Amino acid sequence: MSNLYTGLRFDEFEPGAVLESPARTVTEADIVNYAGLSGDFNPLHMDAVFAAQNTPNRRIAHGALTLALSAGLFNRFVDGTCVAFLELTARYTKYVFPGDTLHIRATVAEKNLASKGDKGVVNFDVKTLNQDGDGVLEGRWTLLIHA
Amino acid sequence: MSNLYTGLRFDEFEPGAVLESPARTVTEADIVNYAGLSGDFNPLHMDAVFAAQNTPNRRIAHGALTLALSAGLFNRFVDGTCVAFLELTARYTKYVFPGDTLHIRATVAEKNLASKGDKGVVNFDVKTLNQDGDGVLEGRWTLLIHA
Repeated sequence: MSNLYTGLRFDEFEPGAVLESPARTVTEADIVNYAGLSGDFNPLHMDAVFAAQNTPNRRIAHGALTLALSAGLFNRFVDGTCVAFLELTARYTKYVFPGDTLHIRATVAEKNLASKGDKGVVNFDVKTLNQDGDGVLEGRWTLLIHA
Repeated sequence: MSNLYTGLRFDEFEPGAVLESPARTVTEADIVNYAGLSGDFNPLHMDAVFAAQNTPNRRIAHGALTLALSAGLFNRFVDGTCVAFLELTARYTKYVFPGDTLHIRATVAEKNLASKGDKGVVNFDVKTLNQDGDGVLEGRWTLLIHA
């Protein structure tokens, strides 16, 4: 592996350790670009008139967009050291609106070195938080990471 | 709700029913655009030289991109009728490469009408398949849908 990348290796993840990412603001541009990429033009996200007539009465970010932004922030921890994303769970706990500022908090839950010793599986409890400190998304992510 | 939207309502989802989406090809453009949107420039996806030196020896699509494309295809079933995405699980079972053509198969697992009767929770077993019919992503998705 190149040393140009700054991700942490398997050995550097200590169970119980908490990793906090920088934040980013979810913008109208993110929602529009995500719709174009995913093909998801659901009116909850794209139709301000429809959204005004339905709970929560304004457009919301796509759930999978919040996950994508969270995964992008998470990548800072494993850039160049992640071998594969294996599994995840996601539970949406609060709406995300354009203008919200999100960051993630990842707690190392457990890890297991593979038999060859060159990589291992690490489980993280990942929470995405908004500017008020409220959780908007939470789940467990399982990654294979270079030792 | 407007009748401009073509999604199915709660009552139209029969447990056991299987919904099959159209397919779409994952392109280099999708991967590049997804990286720009998410901020995830992990070399597994973006650095052809790095990727050539690591399993599977070529660039792969981001896991969360495969999920985004799957959610975009799924939206055709619930466009204008989905109230909220509540939960999901995702297990990656095979790499996705640029040029792969994906579609989804969603089986209605179970559903529960909310007490007010105007909406209900529907669980789907969702599988994303490639052009060879191999599953690349599978999980259970829980959505709140208008009755």
